[in-house]
Amino acid sequence: MDIYELPLSEISEKIRTRELSPVEVVDSSLDRLARVEPSITAFVTVTEDIARGQALKAEAEIAAGEHRGPLHGVPLGVKDLYDTAGVPTTCSSKVRAGHVPDTDSAAVSRLYEAGMVLIGKTETHEFAYGATTPTTGNPWDPARVPGGSSGGSGAAVGAGVVHVALGSDTGGSIRIPASVCGVVGLKPTFGRASRFGVASLSWSLDHVGPLTRNVTDAGLVMAAMSGYDRRDPATVELGEPDFVTGIDAGVAGKRIGVPTNFYTDHVTGEVREATRRAALELESLGARLVEVELPLAEYLLAAEWGICSAEASAYHREAMRESPELFTDEVRALIETGEAQLATDYINALRLRTRIQEAWRDAFADLDVLLAPTLPGPAVPRDDPFFRWDDGAVESATSAYSRMSAPANVTGLPALQVPAAFSADGLPIGVQIIGKPFHEAEVLQVGYALEQVGDVVGRIAPL
Amino acid sequence: MDIYELPLSEISEKIRTRELSPVEVVDSSLDRLARVEPSITAFVTVTEDIARGQALKAEAEIAAGEHRGPLHGVPLGVKDLYDTAGVPTTCSSKVRAGHVPDTDSAAVSRLYEAGMVLIGKTETHEFAYGATTPTTGNPWDPARVPGGSSGGSGAAVGAGVVHVALGSDTGGSIRIPASVCGVVGLKPTFGRASRFGVASLSWSLDHVGPLTRNVTDAGLVMAAMSGYDRRDPATVELGEPDFVTGIDAGVAGKRIGVPTNFYTDHVTGEVREATRRAALELESLGARLVEVELPLAEYLLAAEWGICSAEASAYHREAMRESPELFTDEVRALIETGEAQLATDYINALRLRTRIQEAWRDAFADLDVLLAPTLPGPAVPRDDPFFRWDDGAVESATSAYSRMSAPANVTGLPALQVPAAFSADGLPIGVQIIGKPFHEAEVLQVGYALEQVGDVVGRIAPL
Repeated sequence: MDIYELPLSEISEKIRTRELSPVEVVDSSLDRLARVEPSITAFVTVTEDIARGQALKAEAEIAAGEHRGPLHGVPLGVKDLYDTAGVPTTCSSKVRAGHVPDTDSAAVSRLYEAGMVLIGKTETHEFAYGATTPTTGNPWDPARVPGGSSGGSGAAVGAGVVHVALGSDTGGSIRIPASVCGVVGLKPTFGRASRFGVASLSWSLDHVGPLTRNVTDAGLVMAAMSGYDRRDPATVELGEPDFVTGIDAGVAGKRIGVPTNFYTDHVTGEVREATRRAALELESLGARLVEVELPLAEYLLAAEWGICSAEASAYHREAMRESPELFTDEVRALIETGEAQLATDYINALRLRTRIQEAWRDAFADLDVLLAPTLPGPAVPRDDPFFRWDDGAVESATSAYSRMSAPANVTGLPALQVPAAFSADGLPIGVQIIGKPFHEAEVLQVGYALEQVGDVVGRIAPL
Repeated sequence: MDIYELPLSEISEKIRTRELSPVEVVDSSLDRLARVEPSITAFVTVTEDIARGQALKAEAEIAAGEHRGPLHGVPLGVKDLYDTAGVPTTCSSKVRAGHVPDTDSAAVSRLYEAGMVLIGKTETHEFAYGATTPTTGNPWDPARVPGGSSGGSGAAVGAGVVHVALGSDTGGSIRIPASVCGVVGLKPTFGRASRFGVASLSWSLDHVGPLTRNVTDAGLVMAAMSGYDRRDPATVELGEPDFVTGIDAGVAGKRIGVPTNFYTDHVTGEVREATRRAALELESLGARLVEVELPLAEYLLAAEWGICSAEASAYHREAMRESPELFTDEVRALIETGEAQLATDYINALRLRTRIQEAWRDAFADLDVLLAPTLPGPAVPRDDPFFRWDDGAVESATSAYSRMSAPANVTGLPALQVPAAFSADGLPIGVQIIGKPFHEAEVLQVGYALEQVGDVVGRIAPL
C-alpha cells in the first residue's frame, strides 16, 4: 500500500513517531499527482520545491522534538482563490494571470502554523462563479464534472493526491465538489473562519473550509482554520475550537430534521434513496427523525442570487472596466447581469435573508440538525452539464447543484457533506448535515456516525 | 416665573418632593404650547388627555412612594416618526394619514417606564427625508426654518414647550434642528439605542436620540433610551449606561481635534468665529487643541447619499407602487432617484463607508474628541431655503445643513450639538462634539464644560 492510501491519522502518527518522514509523504503525494493529473487536471500550479522545502523543515523540527500536532508534515492542496505568498494565485482566470501575492491568506497562514505542506494550488471555476470547474475532470469519471467551484480541490482529494484541500463556499462551492468527488466537505458557520486573503465572490455569503477524506480530518482542519481575525470583520471571537474530541459521541437522542419540502423536488431516485437510508441509519443508532417543512423555502434562491450577483459585480467592477475580455464569456455574462441590478432589489434580498434566518432559527428550535441531500444528482458529463427532469424541466448543473447547497449560505448555518452511496454508474452521492449556528461539533458528530455505518467514506477513486 | 421656564432638574426635584404635581407641570407645558403653537406649528398631534392621564398616574405613584427617578412626571415631545400605541403616527406624510400603531416604539416605551408624560407628536420633514420641515417655524424667528428632519422637536424645545423631545438622525436630523433652534441634541453611537418602532429613512445610518434644553438633560434621557433590544439587531449589549455621574469632570488634559479641512469650507464667518471661540474656551479650561486633517473627507457625502438614497427607496418601495401621489413632490423625487440606483453603486458606498470608518478610527488614535461647527450657517428663511456663498455657489439648506452633520452618521460616532453663540440677527449657532464609539460620556463632559462657560445654553426663545 502506498503512503497516500493510508488514512491521515495513520500518516500523522507515523510522522510523529518518525517512522515516516514528511519528505516521504510529500513524495508519495507528488507521485500520485503525476499519475492522475493527466486525467483530472486538478492543479493550476504544483509547488514541488516549496513542498519539499516545507517537508524538510517539518522533518527537522520533529527530529528536534518540536512536533506541532496532527497536521505537521501533512500535504495540503489550496484552491487558487486563496492568496499564497510568493506563489501565483490566479483564481483560474486570465484576469489574474501572473499575479503573485506578498502575503498568505489567513487560512493558509494558520495551516502553515500547524505544519502543513503546500503541494499546489487547485483549479476553481473562474473566480468561484460557477459549479462545474470546466478545466478539471472528476476522478471517478474524468469525462464528468468535478463540481465546483472548488473542483480542483474535490478532484485532488477524491483521487487521493492530498488528504486535505481548501475550498470556499458561497452557494455550495465546498459541498458540491466534495459530493460529486466522493469526499467530505465542511462549510462552517458564517463568521467561524477568516476569509482574509481569499478572493471574494460575495462577501456576505462567502465561507472558507476544507475538503477531506473523512469526517475527523474535516474537524481537525476546520478547527485549525478557525478563529477571530480583525482583517475579516465577519469573524467572531469564540476562541480556538476543538471539533475532534467527542466526535464519536454518537447520535442517541438527537432530533434529526427530515425536510418534507424543497429538498424533495427534482431529485434523482438514487439520491432520494441514499438520503432516506442515511436517515434510517441514524434512527437505528438512536436518533429521532422529525419531519419538518422548511419555512420561506420559495425565497431561498431569490435571496442567494439577489445578494451574490450584486456583490460579485461590485467586486469585479474595476476589472470589468479595465479588461472585460479577460473574463470567460460565461462569467462576464453573470457579472454584467449583476451590474444591471438595482440597489433596491439588492436591499430587498438582504431583508429577505434576514427574514429567512429568523424563520429558520425558529424551525430549528425543536431540532438538533437537518439531514438533506447535498445535491439533486451526481456528476454530470463535462460536455453536457445539465439535468433533465421527468417533467421536462432542463436545469444547468450550476443551478441544480447550488439549489440544494445555497440554503446553508443564505442562513449562514454550518453544513457538512458526507459521502453516502454510489450510483448505479459508480458515481458518488452525498448527504449534508446542517446544524445550528456555531454547532459544527454536533454536525461533525452526526457525520462521523454516518461514516462509521457504511464503507463509502474514505475511498480513493481508482485512477 | 412659569413652571416651563425652570430647568428640568429643578422641576424634577420639586416633583420628587411633591412641591409640584406632574399635573401642574403638564398644564404649564400645554399653556406654553397654546401660546406658541400658532407661530411655530411644532406639533402634528397634541395628546392633552393622555398627558393629563399620565400626569395623574405619576402624581399617584409618587404620592404612594413610587418615585421612578428624575424623568418621572416630566413632559415629552415625540417626533411623529416614532410609533406611539393608540396615538396617530403620520411621519408628517399623507401616506400614513390615520395610521395608529398598536405598539410603542422601543424608545417611547423606555421613557414611559422612566415615568415621562406624552405632550404630543412633533412635526418631521416628510418621512425624515429633508432638513427644513416646511410645516414648522423657528421659535427664534418663525419666518425661518426650524431645521430638520426633527424640526418640530427642535421648535418645541426651543420655544420651551417641553424640556425633552425625541428626534432621529440619519444625516443630521437631530443636530440640525437642535442647532438652528438653539438647543442641545445628541446623536449617540450607532447601536447604542433601539430604533424599533421608528420609521426608517436609511436603516444603516438611522439613529435615535433626544433634543433637550441643556447637556445634562441630554445625558439623562439618552441613558434612559439606551440598551440592547433584540428587535433592533444593530443594538449592542452594553448594559444601562450612566451619562450624568461625572459629567462635570472637566476637560483638563483632553485632546480636542480641530479640523483643518472639510469643516472649514463654505461656512459663515460667524460660525467660524463661534467654533474658534469654543475651542479657545476649552483650551483655557486645560484641554489641548490638536489640528487634524480628516481623512477621506472627499468621500464622506458620496458614502452618506449612496447608502441613504438606496435604503430609503427600498423602504418606501411598496408605498411608491400603491400611492405615489400621496408623497410630496420633493420626497417622491428623492425616492425615484434612489429607485434608479444600481446595486453595485450601493455596495461601493458601503465599502467606502467601511474604509472611512477605519481611517477615522486611526485619525482618532491621538484624540479624545473632535470639535466642529454643527452647521455652516444659522436658520434660513422658509420662503428661500438656500445658502449663497461668496464664490457664487448656491446650496440648498438640506444639502448645506447635512453636509457637516452627515460625517457622524457615516462613521457611526456619537455627536453632540451644543448652542455656542447668536448671530447678529439673533439666530442660534452651535458647535458639535464628535467622540469615539460608545464614548458618549466623554462627549457630554466636553459639552457640559462648554455650556458652563457662556450663558447661551438653556435660553428659551421669547415668543
